[in-house]
Amino acid sequence: MEYPSQLLTHAVDEFAKLPGVGRKTALRLVLHLLRQEPARALQLGESLIRLRNEVKYCKVCHNISDSDICSICGNPQRDASTICVVENVKEVMVIEATRQFGGLYHVLGGLISPMDGIGPQQLQIDSLVERIRRSQQPVSAKNQPIQEVILALSTTMEGDTTNFYIFRKLAEFSDLKITTLARGVAVGDEIEYADEITLGKSILNRTLFTDSFAKK
Amino acid sequence: MEYPSQLLTHAVDEFAKLPGVGRKTALRLVLHLLRQEPARALQLGESLIRLRNEVKYCKVCHNISDSDICSICGNPQRDASTICVVENVKEVMVIEATRQFGGLYHVLGGLISPMDGIGPQQLQIDSLVERIRRSQQPVSAKNQPIQEVILALSTTMEGDTTNFYIFRKLAEFSDLKITTLARGVAVGDEIEYADEITLGKSILNRTLFTDSFAKK
Repeated sequence: MEYPSQLLTHAVDEFAKLPGVGRKTALRLVLHLLRQEPARALQLGESLIRLRNEVKYCKVCHNISDSDICSICGNPQRDASTICVVENVKEVMVIEATRQFGGLYHVLGGLISPMDGIGPQQLQIDSLVERIRRSQQPVSAKNQPIQEVILALSTTMEGDTTNFYIFRKLAEFSDLKITTLARGVAVGDEIEYADEITLGKSILNRTLFTDSFAKK
Repeated sequence: MEYPSQLLTHAVDEFAKLPGVGRKTALRLVLHLLRQEPARALQLGESLIRLRNEVKYCKVCHNISDSDICSICGNPQRDASTICVVENVKEVMVIEATRQFGGLYHVLGGLISPMDGIGPQQLQIDSLVERIRRSQQPVSAKNQPIQEVILALSTTMEGDTTNFYIFRKLAEFSDLKITTLARGVAVGDEIEYADEITLGKSILNRTLFTDSFAKK
């Protein structure tokens, strides 16, 4: 389909580069913006430009942040001895939403994936090792050594590869506890329909009935 | 869900105002843009701002245009005696894509809809009447009088209301031919599944078999 204006064509082209947005949807969105008050399109445009130009990443955990140290790392009430390693910023938000984790995070920025040309060097793995090493050298009394690393990556080929790579990298820290998320039947799921591997894991890693009570 | 950055929150908020884009999709799109090279987000942002600040509407037909007169109205090869009245810019594109119409357009900018507070005054109906009147006063030899108006609006309550309003407004032009789109069974559709009203119309407005040949 031909568009009557270069400006329109350009805006549709740029929208259509977003994942899951085809040219028809892009046109619909752009025409919608043209029908709204001008501020709507200008605010969307400016928010994207500002985000891209001014976004910062926390120097400690690499989460998106408005300052050099993110609000989680900068919160003295959080337990600095436990680090949850996640793939991306999205996982931080999802885990935060559970309100069940009081430690800090470490955002890898992806998973090891030779197919996509992503090796350990592109990820924040070295900075994780360095972070743990520095925490265990007591510079001041305030410095809290990292005692546990929770590997919270997806159970995919890439997730498993990355887990194993990090696990080996962290072998030098003999006192460090390395844990992973519990796998089991989801809350609310019927046992009958659980897949075999998940059900198997949830039997092997069964918990005390009284514990399942207490955690609610 | 809480976002770790004001900039991120703001961008998600703006994206989520688009129709059919919820907060989850908005977050996915924004995080996608952050993973891409910076130019991607900047270009999208700038194209929206430029579109909104610089977009023009054709002074004759009110289609989106890069100049004061759109490329259709400015094309001397098109038949200026036939005007197709459409609801919006999108319909111009769709009809142009058929390559079956060689006349000009008139974009109303909506349909009469008392429920949404849209009356005839908000639409380009007076400018249509004025356009026809002016074309029929031969100022120069070049001036071509408008002889036919095709009402190509949707068959909804609002479309019918608008059709009827325009029809009455154009009653003053005694020589003007007012037509509407043919309604009938869609090409490729099975007769068995056509709805009664459409099938009824397609029987009443049946065409010569030889004509259906020639138009292919």
